[in-house]
Amino acid sequence: MYKILSKINAPKDLKSLSIEEMKQLAEEIREALMNRLSKHGGHFGPNFGMVEATIALHYVFDSPKDKIVYDVSHQSYPHKILTGRKLAYTDEMHFDDISGYTNPQESEHDFFNIGHTSTSVSLAAGLAKARDLTGGSENIIAVIGDGSLSGGEALEGLDLAGEMDSNFIIVVNDNDMSIAENHGGMYKNLKNLRENNGKAETNLFTAMGLDYVFVKSGNDISELISAFERVKDSKKPVAVHIVTEKGKGYQPAEEDKEQWHWSLPFDRETGKLTLSFNGEDYSSLTGEYLLKKMKNDSSVCAITSATPTIMGFNKENRIKAGKQFVDVGIAEETAVALASGLAKNGAKPVYGVYSTFMQRTYDQISQDVCINNNPVTFLVFAASVWGMNDVTHIGIYDIPMISNIPNLVYLAPTCKEEYFAMVDWAIEQKEHPVAVRVPSNGVIHSDKEVRKDYSELNRYEVTKQGSEAAIIALGDFYQIGEQTVEKLAEKNVNATLINPQYITGIDTELLDSLKKQHKVVITLEDGVVDGGFGQKIAAFYGDSAVKVKNYGLKKEFYDRYSANEVLEELGIVPEKIADDVTALLKK
Amino acid sequence: MYKILSKINAPKDLKSLSIEEMKQLAEEIREALMNRLSKHGGHFGPNFGMVEATIALHYVFDSPKDKIVYDVSHQSYPHKILTGRKLAYTDEMHFDDISGYTNPQESEHDFFNIGHTSTSVSLAAGLAKARDLTGGSENIIAVIGDGSLSGGEALEGLDLAGEMDSNFIIVVNDNDMSIAENHGGMYKNLKNLRENNGKAETNLFTAMGLDYVFVKSGNDISELISAFERVKDSKKPVAVHIVTEKGKGYQPAEEDKEQWHWSLPFDRETGKLTLSFNGEDYSSLTGEYLLKKMKNDSSVCAITSATPTIMGFNKENRIKAGKQFVDVGIAEETAVALASGLAKNGAKPVYGVYSTFMQRTYDQISQDVCINNNPVTFLVFAASVWGMNDVTHIGIYDIPMISNIPNLVYLAPTCKEEYFAMVDWAIEQKEHPVAVRVPSNGVIHSDKEVRKDYSELNRYEVTKQGSEAAIIALGDFYQIGEQTVEKLAEKNVNATLINPQYITGIDTELLDSLKKQHKVVITLEDGVVDGGFGQKIAAFYGDSAVKVKNYGLKKEFYDRYSANEVLEELGIVPEKIADDVTALLKK
Repeated sequence: MYKILSKINAPKDLKSLSIEEMKQLAEEIREALMNRLSKHGGHFGPNFGMVEATIALHYVFDSPKDKIVYDVSHQSYPHKILTGRKLAYTDEMHFDDISGYTNPQESEHDFFNIGHTSTSVSLAAGLAKARDLTGGSENIIAVIGDGSLSGGEALEGLDLAGEMDSNFIIVVNDNDMSIAENHGGMYKNLKNLRENNGKAETNLFTAMGLDYVFVKSGNDISELISAFERVKDSKKPVAVHIVTEKGKGYQPAEEDKEQWHWSLPFDRETGKLTLSFNGEDYSSLTGEYLLKKMKNDSSVCAITSATPTIMGFNKENRIKAGKQFVDVGIAEETAVALASGLAKNGAKPVYGVYSTFMQRTYDQISQDVCINNNPVTFLVFAASVWGMNDVTHIGIYDIPMISNIPNLVYLAPTCKEEYFAMVDWAIEQKEHPVAVRVPSNGVIHSDKEVRKDYSELNRYEVTKQGSEAAIIALGDFYQIGEQTVEKLAEKNVNATLINPQYITGIDTELLDSLKKQHKVVITLEDGVVDGGFGQKIAAFYGDSAVKVKNYGLKKEFYDRYSANEVLEELGIVPEKIADDVTALLKK
Repeated sequence: MYKILSKINAPKDLKSLSIEEMKQLAEEIREALMNRLSKHGGHFGPNFGMVEATIALHYVFDSPKDKIVYDVSHQSYPHKILTGRKLAYTDEMHFDDISGYTNPQESEHDFFNIGHTSTSVSLAAGLAKARDLTGGSENIIAVIGDGSLSGGEALEGLDLAGEMDSNFIIVVNDNDMSIAENHGGMYKNLKNLRENNGKAETNLFTAMGLDYVFVKSGNDISELISAFERVKDSKKPVAVHIVTEKGKGYQPAEEDKEQWHWSLPFDRETGKLTLSFNGEDYSSLTGEYLLKKMKNDSSVCAITSATPTIMGFNKENRIKAGKQFVDVGIAEETAVALASGLAKNGAKPVYGVYSTFMQRTYDQISQDVCINNNPVTFLVFAASVWGMNDVTHIGIYDIPMISNIPNLVYLAPTCKEEYFAMVDWAIEQKEHPVAVRVPSNGVIHSDKEVRKDYSELNRYEVTKQGSEAAIIALGDFYQIGEQTVEKLAEKNVNATLINPQYITGIDTELLDSLKKQHKVVITLEDGVVDGGFGQKIAAFYGDSAVKVKNYGLKKEFYDRYSANEVLEELGIVPEKIADDVTALLKK
């Protein structure tokens, strides 16, 4: 099955292969990819498209002396297969040996942990600059594509590269796609270049000061090899624009490129998912809600930065939304500034974004939105221990990051009804920029009446009045708070339960009033404790007799963890917290 | 003196002027600018260059219905003069009526508070999109230039604009300069376009999908008017590339454009500064130190993102540093990624940046540097109540922002000797990304021996052992801590003084040991308290009997404040803190 691949343990083993053998190897790599992806899930289209280019890169260059940096690195699976990690693709027993991204801990052929887009050119420019300062002579190659080119850091990187005067090779993997379709004016230029064999009346890459080489068939090994040989040891920065087909070699993936960018496990004969999810989820619910809202109000405008489905906008819903849905492409900074402009000129912008990618926008939230106090609504997804669990995609740092920016109101709902009440208030009010932390602990319903108006800032809700101990349980961790109160009742402690709702401020009046009948206050938050919500409560009570204990996650780069194990380890378990409370009460 | 200007109270008053009268008006505006700038200081070159373009914009378009958004807005002084705020330039009594940037609180002709670069295109795109959704028909104009084009947000914005299908006008003010000289490959293309009357073999703007209009003489009112009239009411996005001269009309500024980007008050006859500063400053000291370091080690590489002088690299020092100094242009994200790549490939990168602009790089610090744990050194300038005091340039939010990112070591020196010991350790070690918060309270010398090795993380230094109360005084506020201890001694309290040195972690052993003999712990930090250093201490002592009080700045967008007044208001005054301590001790 793996006639040639079985002999490839490192890139050097490629060097003696004929073109025909490399073509055969490409098929075997696709088989290995198919084996892993159909059973384990992962990035499909990007890797199927990059098989030939990866073979050609390793045939022409000498990794790890020559250094290849993959953007996002979600297309680095063929690279992993060729650099000693093929078992993780061919043998189910070894699936967990590797991460889904490049990882220097795994291999000397990987130079960075990368998971966010648009970073490869600037990172690789650093490798090249260090080479020049320290007298090295290796080739430095950045591989970028799949929509990443529109990200600010990538464009800054191209501009920087255009001023360099030594070896630097930028391979632009152009498959005419981002996760969804590409967006942005530059893609008209790329299309033009693709259709005219690299010769159009203008050229983004030469405009950035780079030399330019065009490869029409980016899935043709010979053509790739000859292009890479041409630029090898180049003394100037050069962009090699290769045209590949996303999902190449698997019909369902070639036909629905968006669907097959990333896939859950599937049946390889039919392409149908073998795992399925039937319950409610906040993405679909949010999409439905916003579509209804848009119908009644033409000023409502949903914004995504290339991840439309996280806020429920699959193709069908995008068509329904028409001009009221904007995909800016991978360009998070611009998404936030655009939202600010929309709000300023009377529209109602809603930007849905993963917590981890919101990290791109600290300055835009602060400067473009909050200093101007424009009423933008942010929906922050996967900001939770239950979010994505690759080290590059962890979403638990948002509270320290954005909740300490002045003027922002950051809300944490505890159930579906509260979530939509908050979102609706955020969209309709004109006083504040508002972010809502979308729950990640499943769609929980509540029969209780939820507050509709959040304009009286930082007024917490006491959901159960008790004494001795108060549990302030924020957002996703509210249910842990509820269970803790139950455990305490079993221990004859009648604790108070509080749903704080506001992450960005404290209810000083309520906190003051607790002093009378409470000796202990507990805070719970689904994010890092350092710089977060609970520490503000601890500081508030600093000069009083009230004892405070904060529960939340550690300031740490978690990687491929089990949420339950992490919570267990940190003692964020109702029984354990209840024990801590009773111990503190006795202190 | 202001024959024509005296009749201009709003843009509509321009409409009846002849070209000759507008030329005269341009001279009067320069006179008004000169009056303010020579006495008050401010952005010189950008405004002198934009006089004619601003007149032409307001002649052709109808502000505020048509909306003009100025990038950075440090070139908006002529706009302010023409929109009802001329007294702030002509009359010293009114200098303080206005800020140095556009400001919606000042005028309906201003749409955003803007002070960071590269935001205008994306913000204005939002205004345009809202117009389209709500049925408006006004012109939307973004004015960008002065190096801002290389910033990621601007490039993302151009790309977004290139896909729009309605009115959107981007005026590119090309004066061939950033604050210092321009950097980046794209400026070769701009030069080409300038030299070939807008016709080069490639074109960055058309490559982004924009229409393109070239104006050779961007200081010629007639030529500008005819170009703006051509694009007015355009139904497509268009870039109008105007070539202006920075500092136009004042010989010293035309001759030394970098020096005259921004100026302190000066004598208009000679161009010499009337205020001068003779003491030591951390910028020059840092430059000298790094130059010496570079001489002995060719792998040391200093990086700036278009503000070279903040780290002491004036033109002369840049020449001395040669290839070991990199100005990436306005491209903060890329500066950080570049540093990570440099560190990974064996060089020793040092990135000097203003705290306020570091806000651009949260994600790059986290993903490109900290997840990879690459030994980059960051020097964070003006992170202080004593830093820049315009609302868009406040540097007090850095502690919550970066100190809660895992793996980063953030150090706060209390004097010159400690600063250089920390910087030297940071550059030479290979274990951690390290940021050093450059003091902003003057260059203070200490005779005491300072620690050289900071590799044992989070070990605080007790500089005076006492009892009852402990003052933990971070960085710049250490001297306030010292004075507080003196005040307490007068009240017969023998307080302990601690120099924590580490912002990013707590010395649990030391803090634990304090419990025995201390009832009160005070923290002092020169930054916002929310999410900062002191709240970690408060949280640590949450379940103990020790009383903690945190001193620092409020989470607020301060604007044009007096540092002393702010400190007074917040009670960050030794006498007042000492009173608080004695009150707490009695509690």
